[in-house]
Amino acid sequence: MHSTYEELCSHARETAILSSVQAVLEWDERTKLPAAGGEYRAEQVTQLAGLIHEKQTSSQVGEWLEMLATSPLAADPHSETGAVIGHLRRDYEKKTKLPQSLVEELAHTAVMGQRLWAEARKEDDFSRFQPLLEKTLDLKRQEAAAVGFTDSVYDPLLDDYEPGAKTADVAQVLSELRNALVPLVEEIKGSDRKPNMKILTGDYPVALQEDFGKQVAEAMGFGFQAGRLDVSDHPFCTTLGPHDVCLATRYHEETLVGGLFSTIHEAGHGIYEQGLPAEKFGLPTGEAVSLGIHESQSRMWENLVGRSRAFWEQFYPVAQATFPAGFGDVSLDDFYFAINNVQPSLIRTESDEITYNLHILIRFELEIDLLEATLAVSDLPEAWNEKYRTYLGIEPPDDRDGVLQDVHWSAGLFGYFPTYSLGNLYAAQFFEKACQELGDLNDLFRKGQFEPLREWLRSNIHQHGQKYTPSELAQKITGKPLSHTALIRHLRGKFGALYNLPETT
Amino acid sequence: MHSTYEELCSHARETAILSSVQAVLEWDERTKLPAAGGEYRAEQVTQLAGLIHEKQTSSQVGEWLEMLATSPLAADPHSETGAVIGHLRRDYEKKTKLPQSLVEELAHTAVMGQRLWAEARKEDDFSRFQPLLEKTLDLKRQEAAAVGFTDSVYDPLLDDYEPGAKTADVAQVLSELRNALVPLVEEIKGSDRKPNMKILTGDYPVALQEDFGKQVAEAMGFGFQAGRLDVSDHPFCTTLGPHDVCLATRYHEETLVGGLFSTIHEAGHGIYEQGLPAEKFGLPTGEAVSLGIHESQSRMWENLVGRSRAFWEQFYPVAQATFPAGFGDVSLDDFYFAINNVQPSLIRTESDEITYNLHILIRFELEIDLLEATLAVSDLPEAWNEKYRTYLGIEPPDDRDGVLQDVHWSAGLFGYFPTYSLGNLYAAQFFEKACQELGDLNDLFRKGQFEPLREWLRSNIHQHGQKYTPSELAQKITGKPLSHTALIRHLRGKFGALYNLPETT
Repeated sequence: MHSTYEELCSHARETAILSSVQAVLEWDERTKLPAAGGEYRAEQVTQLAGLIHEKQTSSQVGEWLEMLATSPLAADPHSETGAVIGHLRRDYEKKTKLPQSLVEELAHTAVMGQRLWAEARKEDDFSRFQPLLEKTLDLKRQEAAAVGFTDSVYDPLLDDYEPGAKTADVAQVLSELRNALVPLVEEIKGSDRKPNMKILTGDYPVALQEDFGKQVAEAMGFGFQAGRLDVSDHPFCTTLGPHDVCLATRYHEETLVGGLFSTIHEAGHGIYEQGLPAEKFGLPTGEAVSLGIHESQSRMWENLVGRSRAFWEQFYPVAQATFPAGFGDVSLDDFYFAINNVQPSLIRTESDEITYNLHILIRFELEIDLLEATLAVSDLPEAWNEKYRTYLGIEPPDDRDGVLQDVHWSAGLFGYFPTYSLGNLYAAQFFEKACQELGDLNDLFRKGQFEPLREWLRSNIHQHGQKYTPSELAQKITGKPLSHTALIRHLRGKFGALYNLPETT
Repeated sequence: MHSTYEELCSHARETAILSSVQAVLEWDERTKLPAAGGEYRAEQVTQLAGLIHEKQTSSQVGEWLEMLATSPLAADPHSETGAVIGHLRRDYEKKTKLPQSLVEELAHTAVMGQRLWAEARKEDDFSRFQPLLEKTLDLKRQEAAAVGFTDSVYDPLLDDYEPGAKTADVAQVLSELRNALVPLVEEIKGSDRKPNMKILTGDYPVALQEDFGKQVAEAMGFGFQAGRLDVSDHPFCTTLGPHDVCLATRYHEETLVGGLFSTIHEAGHGIYEQGLPAEKFGLPTGEAVSLGIHESQSRMWENLVGRSRAFWEQFYPVAQATFPAGFGDVSLDDFYFAINNVQPSLIRTESDEITYNLHILIRFELEIDLLEATLAVSDLPEAWNEKYRTYLGIEPPDDRDGVLQDVHWSAGLFGYFPTYSLGNLYAAQFFEKACQELGDLNDLFRKGQFEPLREWLRSNIHQHGQKYTPSELAQKITGKPLSHTALIRHLRGKFGALYNLPETT
């Protein structure tokens, strides 16, 4: 049995090598590739994808898994071998259940979809995108049917990003979050305190921003001997090998904060990747748990650390010295309030720590309705606008900045959106626990000490790879299932003080 | 037959896709990879190399080639199909003649060799490297025997880099070159004119050097929409796809010229790569002819263009404006003389346009003697020093800057060195012809017009891919076989004027 297990692992590692090569190609495409190089790069990616798919669906893997199914090695799902076998079986079954023709049509439709979406968005014409979205939904329903489900057609799709999560549970916790957030946003709107946003705009040379961002990422604990930071239109983090974690951010000459918070966010992802056990790279126990848990790391560093006053007590003097023209005469309190401005707005990616979750909720609720066919695609724009009115009190003037603003649905990414808010919820619940165990983290941040938090995350989350599902991890670490309460406590505490809101009980 | 040919081509293109992915991994390793990422990168490269080797030596390829051998498609070796079939057959036969065990031992010895060489060089201890070099020579003799040869054991090795070239012919032309160069170097040594080299040293900010280098490369005709320029310890040019040609150079704060001439040299390679027919990428007719012809392009741009007075009539004012602290008060004539200083020296890579060829000749003559076993490895250091005394009138004080200075032999690269000087010879012969056909190129350079030369190279050399061997190309373009006369004419003319040498007839 042990030799079968070794063969299975070595096959998984070989597959991971090819996937990591694919990641190199994609990283290069997003950061360095000359404009004319895109077409051939697509050929390189396609050929490699074929080789990877071949390895992933090889019947040999099925035979090994079959032999190991009843082995003692598979008995404990939280053991090293049990977690590896369990996850590889789950991936193999999902992959082999899908007919090749469906896989190809999904891939093709995603490419076409993104192109059509970009055109439709540019021309603010939802009707151009509508037929493709209908087709995509039809294919995703076929995908869900092929994989199989009992409760919701959304379950197998969500499971791709958040293994083990159920639609009903996620809907429950997110609706409680919504019920708490909508009135909080109303209260903030009613406050007469408003930050002065003009202080964030000035002249911030890109080279200095990059130096400052690297300094912050390094202080957080991102290791540049095994990582890098580059520039891309859309910030991201990708792993090209166990000691090669790549961050990308974007800079704007006229403001520091956009680029900096992207760097902090991506460095949060990167610290997770660097904290996974390197010797298990390519095996499930060397990989991140889920998108939601990944996002909990980036959001924790971005919002709970990077937007805290304590963090800036350490870094604001450095920022003032680095950008004297920008911050020389701005007080820390004014700066802190400005980077925590809450303001209902149209665009998800530009929204604040509170309203961001309402943007997600709108998408989550609508994509379930679309997949379950209780909402027709033709009615989607109006349903979108209606939810923006209800949850955020604003109304998109057009579809470009409304229902057409995100690429996800055009690329077939259904089940992806909720992981952003799950990340916020996990982040708050983990952070609260870390504060209980480590003492007041803000005291440490004020002194520039981020290592205790990073080590706590490493030992509680990173080192386990995929040994626990997201919900098992929440239970194991915090002793409670995931809920909205920690996040709401954090938001009420922080923004209550900033906006001088009446205390609630 | 046509469908067999199509299958052969499509297999070659697929192999080329994997090789180009390999090139991406290597480019990234040399320019961007974090320090700790090297070990896993080696695993990625090794796995991909295995896949490439499998494809290259697949018996299916042998069957297709067998079927096509007597086809009319193969009849004319200079036709598209004939050139493709001929080159693929040649590559396949070379690859399949070598026993797998020998290939692996060569690869392993090359890795070990480079490591041992670096240690031996650091400690200036040839004896540490000697056993490995003896083993490498033994393996290279086995390689030559497996491939087969009639005249010299050096023939099949040279053929890897300079297809179709024969040792005897190359030895003939290079010895004539040597006989003309040795006295020319003596004459220059005797001249009382010497450039003031101090004017090349100053303060040259790297960011400005990069801008200036890009401006020069662009003026030469290197296209940045399908290419890039990065930084590396060792300058190089590599192609990651038909529209993705990567240059790398290195900068020194204290001088412009080292980095700049590297950029010009590599851009010369890059212009060749960008001039190959993109639609034939992956087929022999879309690939460069040989190392010698490749080097003829880089050397032509570096020396015949970049070190000409006409070139600097265009660019020196730009350099003066960009680096006022460096060149503000230096005359063009003083600058031109300094970048053309001739001075016998120990290190090949730092040598000038004339003595460079003597460094190459020494290595070429010694490596033939080593392979033919007329020189024992134990006698190599003394033989090396003796040749430096005879050809250059100087003597290495140690092996570190003598016989241990180059990595090539440690990596098993025998037959590679002469291609550098062949490049210089081809460059001069082609350039002379271009001047006959296009009129005085210097007049064009003075006005910053480099396109006529680039287009001439494209239509005479680049567009043909591998349709002609190097020697066929020389005959076709210049009507003459390769000889030393054009290069000597160029060197005598240029350096005769600079050093005020008596005219010879």
